[in-house]
Amino acid sequence: MLTITRLDQQDARRLIEGAEAHSRSIGVPMCIAITDESGHLLAFSRMDGGKITSTTIAIDKAFTAAAARKPTHEYGTASQPGAPAWGISSAIGGRLMVVGGGLPVEHDGQVIGGIGVSSGSPAQDQSVAQAGIDHWLAARP
Amino acid sequence: MLTITRLDQQDARRLIEGAEAHSRSIGVPMCIAITDESGHLLAFSRMDGGKITSTTIAIDKAFTAAAARKPTHEYGTASQPGAPAWGISSAIGGRLMVVGGGLPVEHDGQVIGGIGVSSGSPAQDQSVAQAGIDHWLAARP
Amino acid sequence: MLTITRLDQQDARRLIEGAEAHSRSIGVPMCIAITDESGHLLAFSRMDGGKITSTTIAIDKAFTAAAARKPTHEYGTASQPGAPAWGISSAIGGRLMVVGGGLPVEHDGQVIGGIGVSSGSPAQDQSVAQAGIDHWLAARP
Amino acid sequence: MLTITRLDQQDARRLIEGAEAHSRSIGVPMCIAITDESGHLLAFSRMDGGKITSTTIAIDKAFTAAAARKPTHEYGTASQPGAPAWGISSAIGGRLMVVGGGLPVEHDGQVIGGIGVSSGSPAQDQSVAQAGIDHWLAARP
Repeated sequence: MLTITRLDQQDARRLIEGAEAHSRSIGVPMCIAITDESGHLLAFSRMDGGKITSTTIAIDKAFTAAAARKPTHEYGTASQPGAPAWGISSAIGGRLMVVGGGLPVEHDGQVIGGIGVSSGSPAQDQSVAQAGIDHWLAARP
Repeated sequence: MLTITRLDQQDARRLIEGAEAHSRSIGVPMCIAITDESGHLLAFSRMDGGKITSTTIAIDKAFTAAAARKPTHEYGTASQPGAPAWGISSAIGGRLMVVGGGLPVEHDGQVIGGIGVSSGSPAQDQSVAQAGIDHWLAARP
Repeated sequence: MLTITRLDQQDARRLIEGAEAHSRSIGVPMCIAITDESGHLLAFSRMDGGKITSTTIAIDKAFTAAAARKPTHEYGTASQPGAPAWGISSAIGGRLMVVGGGLPVEHDGQVIGGIGVSSGSPAQDQSVAQAGIDHWLAARP
Repeated sequence: MLTITRLDQQDARRLIEGAEAHSRSIGVPMCIAITDESGHLLAFSRMDGGKITSTTIAIDKAFTAAAARKPTHEYGTASQPGAPAWGISSAIGGRLMVVGGGLPVEHDGQVIGGIGVSSGSPAQDQSVAQAGIDHWLAARP
């Protein structure tokens, strides 16, 4: 048997809290999704003004980052024309996201969940996801 | 043009807050989803111990209640063998839920969103969804 | 709560009317879809001679333009190899369209719906979508 | 954070080993699927003669048993016409299985995975799934 560490609901809220604060500071309302390490949704917030399409995209960015244990922007690089993972962006019914804004959440070198952000530019989305993680890390004892 | 009233993020959190409180009082951790009046996800919480399958089921109950403007348990009655809506339960790729636990959220006689709850019995799910609405109503000025 | 403005059925028909007129003037029968601001279908016309594949494509272009609040051809630019949104074209099960021909419909600076056109070249599709909007704007009091 | 116990690959093989032995003893070649506690596939065997349709059905039975923490035949009872969970069988795109043959795998009172079996009668499928669990339990120190 394996022993797995996983985000709980308090972690999930802390991640969303940090992401929302940064989202407000840059003036871009976001969709923010938190998944467990298996890619299943734990918590979600579509801030007032977040895009409808970003509902699914944020969830799928978090899913990808957690379940593939890789930031989504790294898949963006790896899936360029001629690169080894070319075409991966349509895998899993299109759920495998290669656009920046999805980050794995790690603890003791293990992926224990994912955060996915969407509605701004990919760079903005990624900075908001990182802010969620930074806030969560700062709150840990 | 039409003018539509829609839950905002504060409403969504209030609905989840009330649902979680009742969920804890009956000792059944739940998945709770809030959608806008068009059935798009606004907020979601999988409480620690909520079922994985209930992630999708809660979202789809909220979707159905909001977008069809009907409690999901009423579809349960209407879709029994021989009843008029027989077979509706597999519509929209199975997203149209006929199991209790999805309720429309109404304001001034209009549906402005939906709440969907899953992980307990359908009766428990429905009572937790109702508790979310009651709490939201009590908080309104 | 939020107050949302949304296209009504009369708006939708006016948009289609303008699009069909331009479609006939360039001799390319089109599929034309109108969605509300949440991306849900309001009205649709496959003109005699419109392509079968364009049924879905027009609907998804209107969905994308409304729900992401962005013309689909702008996603075409942003999702080129090496560009920030590379790979977005397969998101949401492939519904996020990056081919020209989808335009948001705006009123008072807010997106209140979308129009999507398909069957011609992307440039033709876009011109027909714009003609629908121009006709709708001209008819407004 | 939560600490989760999960089947590992050795457990999965042991479960399949026991299921295959019983399958051979009753002369019905089976599809056998093992998932982790989140419902994701860990191991799979379509014995020579197993049905093609049962590939998906076995996987979805294991998914349901693990992710809903309930034997699939219990959903069969609960989802009969007039029963509380009527209509649940088409949930999650039809993945929620209510036909017997899916069992949760438990350890210390927690669900740590699922086994799903298909190709025979539901009673045969269930007995083969149970044989897998019995064999796995017997092998544990």
